[in-house]
Amino acid sequence: MKRIDLVHTIKQKGNFLCVGLDSDLTKIPDHLRNDPNPILRFNKAIIDATHPYCVSYKINTAFYEALGADGWKIMEETLNYIPKTHFTIADAKRGDIGNTSNMYAKAFFETLSFDAVTLAPYMGKDSIAPFFEYPGKWGIVLALTSNPGSADYEQRTLDNKPLFEHVIQTTASFTTPENAMFVIGATKATELAQIRTVIPNHFLLVPGVGAQGGSLEDVAKYGMNADCGLLINASRSIIYASSGIDFAEKAALEAKTMAQEMASLLSLYAG
Amino acid sequence: MKRIDLVHTIKQKGNFLCVGLDSDLTKIPDHLRNDPNPILRFNKAIIDATHPYCVSYKINTAFYEALGADGWKIMEETLNYIPKTHFTIADAKRGDIGNTSNMYAKAFFETLSFDAVTLAPYMGKDSIAPFFEYPGKWGIVLALTSNPGSADYEQRTLDNKPLFEHVIQTTASFTTPENAMFVIGATKATELAQIRTVIPNHFLLVPGVGAQGGSLEDVAKYGMNADCGLLINASRSIIYASSGIDFAEKAALEAKTMAQEMASLLSLYAG
Repeated sequence: MKRIDLVHTIKQKGNFLCVGLDSDLTKIPDHLRNDPNPILRFNKAIIDATHPYCVSYKINTAFYEALGADGWKIMEETLNYIPKTHFTIADAKRGDIGNTSNMYAKAFFETLSFDAVTLAPYMGKDSIAPFFEYPGKWGIVLALTSNPGSADYEQRTLDNKPLFEHVIQTTASFTTPENAMFVIGATKATELAQIRTVIPNHFLLVPGVGAQGGSLEDVAKYGMNADCGLLINASRSIIYASSGIDFAEKAALEAKTMAQEMASLLSLYAG
Repeated sequence: MKRIDLVHTIKQKGNFLCVGLDSDLTKIPDHLRNDPNPILRFNKAIIDATHPYCVSYKINTAFYEALGADGWKIMEETLNYIPKTHFTIADAKRGDIGNTSNMYAKAFFETLSFDAVTLAPYMGKDSIAPFFEYPGKWGIVLALTSNPGSADYEQRTLDNKPLFEHVIQTTASFTTPENAMFVIGATKATELAQIRTVIPNHFLLVPGVGAQGGSLEDVAKYGMNADCGLLINASRSIIYASSGIDFAEKAALEAKTMAQEMASLLSLYAG
């Protein structure tokens, strides 16, 4: 999906919500467990219920790989079920030497037809470069994450700047705001103002609102630009809003509540 | 596989070779392409031919993911075909927030039964910690890789030490030489002496000998310890040694040549 279409969808729907499908057999409602394909059934119900209130879905590959080859099949079927109007993200955190990253890019952009894949930058520029060679596809590079371990390396200073800022600058130097986004955790909202001085135009994928405790309002206040420039992900707080037979209804309600707050924030900060 | 068993196998067989199964449909011999399952047939032939001359196999997950769900099935069947005497590595470069890394650990250690999985440390300690909670299983953490991009972040200095040394020290502080290894590229052999002052006992997984041009002798000279402490990986130089009907025979010959050189190096440096 091209940037212009993503921005159009966000403005038209009035939200920038990404629903994370971290679907776990041990957490989905009991009554689905006897289904021949419980995770797929769960995902379809969540997508049916939430798609009016979001612009994107993020599939966390770990949860599908834990089911082996069957899990990859479920990932594929889930991806194919998501309406073409929605921006699709493989949250896979890949990155390797060039010839291997070529294969990962093929896996997520050709074999599967995701719009974007998240990337781990530790091995440097050439380890993520192959993902930026697909027109209309996106690499979303880990910069500053919301977990405690972000203090171990990401936030450490080298040459007067935190490592994550080096990652942002190096990546921005060989990609464009049309094919690169960055992951910035919602619990780091105050760093967003500084990050916006470095990359005013890029989209940011922001996890950590919801179960991890980040503030939606702060993220919008410090991170939004004229094109919105934000995709805010919520996973557990939406998909596990209820463990009863009303799980899809409650997920929709949760998504709708977030979408409504986002509509106000859009008119406040990206008006 | 426990460390004591890995060391025993290395000493008994007289080599520390890991064969990398980066099996690519476009590179396997032409005559296999009409097989109903060409990659699996190729892998089985390579394993049959090379297992006397190596102690480990490394499956590069990217090459299987590029084939989608079928690829994961082939990865599983390949893994099950590897003799139980050999140390098995999922070269997957995973790492994510805790609850997601739990799922990746489950994928590679429970659903699939690999001995080890490679890990990308960018997100810090808690992003790789779940992989070290399985007795007899290993996390192999990226430290200093052999690609050009290793200069972008890994080799940059912070607090008087390169980033990769921080990764090594931080990881070594909460793991043991019984469950943690590090990836050090063979093209960085001279850094090995310094790395050995920091982690004298750990095993190192060393890619980059062969197609990437690293020297086997230098790696042994600077990196070997009394338990050997090295697994040297070669992928393309072995598995694509010939593209004819003699591919397995030539792969065996290439592996045997490396194994013989390793036997001399073992008696020289780990005698």
